[in-house]
Amino acid sequence: MATVAVLGFGNQRLYERIGAAEKLGGEPPFGGAAMAIEFAEAGHDVVLADPNLSEQDPEHVDRVADAGVELTEDDAQAVEGAEMVVLFTPFGATGGIIREIASHLEEGAVVCPTCTSSAFEIHESLYEAGLEVPEAVGVMPAHPAGIPGTENHRAYITARGTGNGTVLATEEQAELVEEVLSSTGKEVFELPHVELVSVVGDLSVVLLKRVIEALKEFCAVKALGAPQEMIDRQAMMTLATLAALIEAGGIGGLLETLDEEAIEASYSNMEPFVDGVEEPEGEPVERFVVLPGEATREAVIELVGERGWRTVRMRAWVDLYKKH
Amino acid sequence: MATVAVLGFGNQRLYERIGAAEKLGGEPPFGGAAMAIEFAEAGHDVVLADPNLSEQDPEHVDRVADAGVELTEDDAQAVEGAEMVVLFTPFGATGGIIREIASHLEEGAVVCPTCTSSAFEIHESLYEAGLEVPEAVGVMPAHPAGIPGTENHRAYITARGTGNGTVLATEEQAELVEEVLSSTGKEVFELPHVELVSVVGDLSVVLLKRVIEALKEFCAVKALGAPQEMIDRQAMMTLATLAALIEAGGIGGLLETLDEEAIEASYSNMEPFVDGVEEPEGEPVERFVVLPGEATREAVIELVGERGWRTVRMRAWVDLYKKH
Repeated sequence: MATVAVLGFGNQRLYERIGAAEKLGGEPPFGGAAMAIEFAEAGHDVVLADPNLSEQDPEHVDRVADAGVELTEDDAQAVEGAEMVVLFTPFGATGGIIREIASHLEEGAVVCPTCTSSAFEIHESLYEAGLEVPEAVGVMPAHPAGIPGTENHRAYITARGTGNGTVLATEEQAELVEEVLSSTGKEVFELPHVELVSVVGDLSVVLLKRVIEALKEFCAVKALGAPQEMIDRQAMMTLATLAALIEAGGIGGLLETLDEEAIEASYSNMEPFVDGVEEPEGEPVERFVVLPGEATREAVIELVGERGWRTVRMRAWVDLYKKH
Repeated sequence: MATVAVLGFGNQRLYERIGAAEKLGGEPPFGGAAMAIEFAEAGHDVVLADPNLSEQDPEHVDRVADAGVELTEDDAQAVEGAEMVVLFTPFGATGGIIREIASHLEEGAVVCPTCTSSAFEIHESLYEAGLEVPEAVGVMPAHPAGIPGTENHRAYITARGTGNGTVLATEEQAELVEEVLSSTGKEVFELPHVELVSVVGDLSVVLLKRVIEALKEFCAVKALGAPQEMIDRQAMMTLATLAALIEAGGIGGLLETLDEEAIEASYSNMEPFVDGVEEPEGEPVERFVVLPGEATREAVIELVGERGWRTVRMRAWVDLYKKH
């Protein structure tokens, strides 16, 4: 059994507005409150902190308290003694919250971003607060891959390695996080790289699923006589180019830049060679580095400095979560 | 009317093996030979050079000659006096051919890569040969977006600008290329950036078409309450991350790295929010820079040096075409 602090009750108004209960089942409160409930029900010693606790629906607060969760408005107090600190904090708020709680974190504790912050952002904020990752404090996502508390939420996604070889959590911290997440009865997927957690677990999964289908279909054009290495390189450059266009002008800008008529004229020549889907064989990728485009890099260097940029090298995620 | 040199007869064995005539209509010879024929039939003064001319099917050679095309085995001789030089040369051969023809190119001529080389690769090779682009010699793709000579081939794709602002062809060179390509009766699409020519016109179009569909679908998850800027950034990071994984381990490596079960578990929570397709508005992208991953960058710096890398900055395409 572990001591767990969950920071952030969850934006219940958002869940109501998007119809989370109707679409995915379950009863509010969702989000951080629901994670606190399920950890407590699994037998852990749980505290839920939210500075605006008094503004929450009293029925929701009662449901949390009834599950045995301790409630407080004080983040710093909540993390004292906690082995695992889950951040279900608003987009853009993580840096400030880490500054507030840094000196209260237990030696060897592990901080877990969910879907509102990134492991890289927390790594950076802890570093700025003078804490070494993972020796002093580890970072390991506890990404819910769904809205916690909905019936359909059946998995957590986590990772401790990164594409550039940095490891953000010790073995001990990783075991603790996996134990706590597994104890909820949900499936826990440990991915090889934290960069993939948001890609697989967040909004992005909608795009990811389709792009994977498209890549398998693309492999089938091998019928045209192209070797797999060439298929791979064309795919790499296509996705990198689209990423750069989106960075510069958004998806709307990309669509304006490409000529859809030209695409149709060109595609009609390839279509007869695309039949079916092929899954190429491969080995899991041990090391990779995502180099975001110029605009992101400049914004991030401004934000965290050249040293920060060089330290983690996967700064675009930081920018994503800091801005929203 | 223009003087045009086409270098490269086209790999007729490949076209036969993949069933180009059956699938796309038309009669061989396809490829460079077919481009030479259609330029000549449009009234231009055309020479076709191929060092292995004697190994071509005599019937194919006759068809070219009957169209009024001059035939030679000597590339250097063919480009003398040519205003437009089309490279339909084998993958990986461009650097050597540029070295061979550089001193024979007319002042102000324009060199046109098709689907076997890239504008950046030619730019680099001309630079190494001591020629300034576009003042001494311009570069402008004449990408056939299909197999020349097949009935279905109905468009050429070209471009003269680049994402980083470099312009590879003068106004005069661009007008010449457009005039020659248009005179064939085919549609000519001029894209804003040469980086997009291969993405739109080559194998990649199969992937591009699907990814564009996926991006429009992804925009529809806005229903979840996310602002377009966040959708854009998630898309950008997802595509950049996939590109980096493909660079490191190919499409096979990417599939091994991602956990498809985790993707399914996560996607099931997003699916109820994806309904339909949304086309976000946007402005064409004026500037963008594709930063390829570490491996490509290192390979390219080794190939063309730090200066070359910095000059054009879109070196991965060079690598793609030089290797294959």
